[in-house]
Amino acid sequence: MKSEKISQLTTNRLSIYLRCLKELAGEGQTSVSSDSLADRFHLNSAQIRKDLAYFGEFGIRGVGYDIALLRDHIIKILGLDRSYNLAIIGAGRLGSAVVDYEALRLSSFHVKALFDVDPKKIGKKVGGIVISDLKNFQSVAKKVNIDIAVIAVPAHATPDVFEKIKKAGIKAVLNFAPVRLNADDEMRVRSLDVTSGLENLSYFLTERPQTGERSKPAGKARRSKE
Amino acid sequence: MKSEKISQLTTNRLSIYLRCLKELAGEGQTSVSSDSLADRFHLNSAQIRKDLAYFGEFGIRGVGYDIALLRDHIIKILGLDRSYNLAIIGAGRLGSAVVDYEALRLSSFHVKALFDVDPKKIGKKVGGIVISDLKNFQSVAKKVNIDIAVIAVPAHATPDVFEKIKKAGIKAVLNFAPVRLNADDEMRVRSLDVTSGLENLSYFLTERPQTGERSKPAGKARRSKE
Repeated sequence: MKSEKISQLTTNRLSIYLRCLKELAGEGQTSVSSDSLADRFHLNSAQIRKDLAYFGEFGIRGVGYDIALLRDHIIKILGLDRSYNLAIIGAGRLGSAVVDYEALRLSSFHVKALFDVDPKKIGKKVGGIVISDLKNFQSVAKKVNIDIAVIAVPAHATPDVFEKIKKAGIKAVLNFAPVRLNADDEMRVRSLDVTSGLENLSYFLTERPQTGERSKPAGKARRSKE
Repeated sequence: MKSEKISQLTTNRLSIYLRCLKELAGEGQTSVSSDSLADRFHLNSAQIRKDLAYFGEFGIRGVGYDIALLRDHIIKILGLDRSYNLAIIGAGRLGSAVVDYEALRLSSFHVKALFDVDPKKIGKKVGGIVISDLKNFQSVAKKVNIDIAVIAVPAHATPDVFEKIKKAGIKAVLNFAPVRLNADDEMRVRSLDVTSGLENLSYFLTERPQTGERSKPAGKARRSKE
């Protein structure tokens, strides 16, 4: 197996392959070809072969991939053969939704701490996790050995929260706030940005041929706006 | 301006540039160079020039980009010069968090309908929006003219919800469920997948040199697991 860094795009695809392989294993299948994997899950078979070839030989021509072997290998590559402790910052609806997120229940990710600044929330529980005072982030995060911080606070509070995460020495951040966070090479920030997701969709809707009047090149009319 | 399709990666970057330009405009700046834009927001200046050159000439060498002009142009490209009606499916914590999402308040995206299957929720309000019965999805979605559907239901309910969205003729979907949805070319699905985000972070944590013992090539030990 090559151990060079693979791109974020590839890890996304590995996550997808893993989910597909788990589904097939759950159905009792033991092997699958890249073509049938692609057909079944609407993936690109050439891309599958390319991505997986990068990690070594898993396929046998004419037979396909050994599902359990490949699944376990992707689990290893993605580091999912250990567990990770999560801290959620922000005990609002979004943060609470992550605590309760059903897909995490059988995963390698375990919510160990939840933080807020609201005195009415601090001390209460969400999904069995007591809400801690954000003031005590560093000590609590250290005590429960946090690997990954999840930012679920309003945009204006995000830079301060990010500083706290950095100071606590946490190296991985999942960010829901629509704020760009500047991480150094020692850290990784992954953003799940609703605004950017919606803007990608508005771009798609604008470019669709059906909406011809909106797909014209943008004129200079707006130039005078400011 | 070229009107060919641009990649999802580019629209993500345009979203980021737009946010940065809005921030600079808010501070009263009128022009910015790609280098200072890159410095300020930790972006790649060569990438900025490449992305923006694709849409025409916005920069003047030595002077930089006209912030208002470029901002308004990106708004046009991303189709943000009109408004979009959103339907949220799933009135749990996640769906409710999207209804209340502060960043949407001044955006082009307006939540117009919220759906659930739980009789205890139907008829109640979240953020001023009455929760409708998912049974009536098609008629309600048509009445309020939904452009974008947001899936915030558990994984097992997602395929059925996606079918309803397709039948209603909605062409753009933001999907929070950890389920791969097969859209045809007429549709665009954008997934904000917590699991895949976390798996990208676990990959990063595993590959970091500090965690040397975990960055060894994966062995065959797990082969015997199944």
